[in-house]
Amino acid sequence: MILETGFQAREAIRSKLWTGPTPALAPGYAQANLVILPSKYAFDFFLFCQRNPKPCPILDVCEKGDFRPILTAPTGDIRTDIPLYRIYKNGVLIEEIQDITKYCTDDMVSFLIGCSFTFENALSKAGVPIRHIEEDKNVPMYITNIECRPAGIFSGPMVVSMRPMPEELVKKAIEATEKYPKVHGGPIHWGNPEEIGIKTIDNPDFGDAVTIHKGEVPVFWGCGVTPQAAIMRAKPELVITHAPGHMFITDIKDEELKGL
Amino acid sequence: MILETGFQAREAIRSKLWTGPTPALAPGYAQANLVILPSKYAFDFFLFCQRNPKPCPILDVCEKGDFRPILTAPTGDIRTDIPLYRIYKNGVLIEEIQDITKYCTDDMVSFLIGCSFTFENALSKAGVPIRHIEEDKNVPMYITNIECRPAGIFSGPMVVSMRPMPEELVKKAIEATEKYPKVHGGPIHWGNPEEIGIKTIDNPDFGDAVTIHKGEVPVFWGCGVTPQAAIMRAKPELVITHAPGHMFITDIKDEELKGL
Repeated sequence: MILETGFQAREAIRSKLWTGPTPALAPGYAQANLVILPSKYAFDFFLFCQRNPKPCPILDVCEKGDFRPILTAPTGDIRTDIPLYRIYKNGVLIEEIQDITKYCTDDMVSFLIGCSFTFENALSKAGVPIRHIEEDKNVPMYITNIECRPAGIFSGPMVVSMRPMPEELVKKAIEATEKYPKVHGGPIHWGNPEEIGIKTIDNPDFGDAVTIHKGEVPVFWGCGVTPQAAIMRAKPELVITHAPGHMFITDIKDEELKGL
Repeated sequence: MILETGFQAREAIRSKLWTGPTPALAPGYAQANLVILPSKYAFDFFLFCQRNPKPCPILDVCEKGDFRPILTAPTGDIRTDIPLYRIYKNGVLIEEIQDITKYCTDDMVSFLIGCSFTFENALSKAGVPIRHIEEDKNVPMYITNIECRPAGIFSGPMVVSMRPMPEELVKKAIEATEKYPKVHGGPIHWGNPEEIGIKTIDNPDFGDAVTIHKGEVPVFWGCGVTPQAAIMRAKPELVITHAPGHMFITDIKDEELKGL
């Protein structure tokens, strides 16, 4: 199956020809995290993201009751173009499903949030190793002691992802990712994990632990799990997200997100 | 009166020690356009700005019923820290007043939008002349044939400001302003005005005509009048804005807006 563009990948997902995780699809096209909320929470969530752009960089927001991301995938449909979704009720995950049409009323608002796949491509190109990819694991993620700026009902700590690297590559990693503010931008911290409240680097709060070789420095980036954590704390009656690794694929090339 | 910082300028305005236009106050501190709307329009307006960042770059958004801009001036108060406001009802300007407290209910949402003063400082530093300042006029502004991306009830053409300059300075002007995406960023057009639907460059839709010397090229930037034009078209029952030239002065230095 040739799924080279965002458009082709979405068609394959929509027609259920593709039902698995998305990282390998449409290389070079930006993938996005999804959050769908009842409209009464939409302004607060928009504001939470605007105030915390490192962990919650907004790529696109749909109109109330509309499911077309007009900036990033005008031919797309949020309701059908993701292989697997999660349904949260009152902050609790109740199911993982392929078809969310029954939940998608005229009252829902959809947000697409930048995903670290884009900047991992940039890191690789800059010669920085991506340990969790080398070890075929999920990226390790940690809850920090850095509080996000609250907005309305949403608040919570920043969650970060971590990639270890030799000290001499840290500068390269910063430079490579700072160019992509729409996909978390530059790291928020590097070096001693305790400075941001991480006590056990070998025991991440989400994802898998990865090997940190002697002489390597852990480097931390704002993570798209942050808005999900804030949502879980706020406990809206209904929230729909993508399932981990099952992202929305846009028409935007990774390169186009540079400097936006 | 020494009004060197944003804080000092706001204090002077709040206590009515300063009641005039703001451009000369607190040099180097970013000034902002203000829009206050009933909360039912806040999501749509937020989305309109997010979709049209060149003319409508958002600097800060207050919570519903709150009037403190926590990102850009946490000690400020939108209701008292601007020397002169405009009240629009159903899209019609009904008064210009110093005190808006009677209009500021718990239901209002306030937006601060980037203002071109910041990038004009950058242009000056880059050696680009600012004709309307030289001629002591308002910047000339034009309605273009470029439609903004609509959002909810808001739609309309992009309004641009124009600064003429010798052709050899255009590149410098682009470079100087592209660094400031939060204050309109780089120009949206330069050269033939008709290409963006401007028929009479000597007769601007807003502001004053300025001299264009032989061999000079008109350069056009997205303008903060764009959201006001969209609001006037949408005709919400109540909108409060700053009066022209009477801006909100933030704690953010112009330099800090670089690259944000």
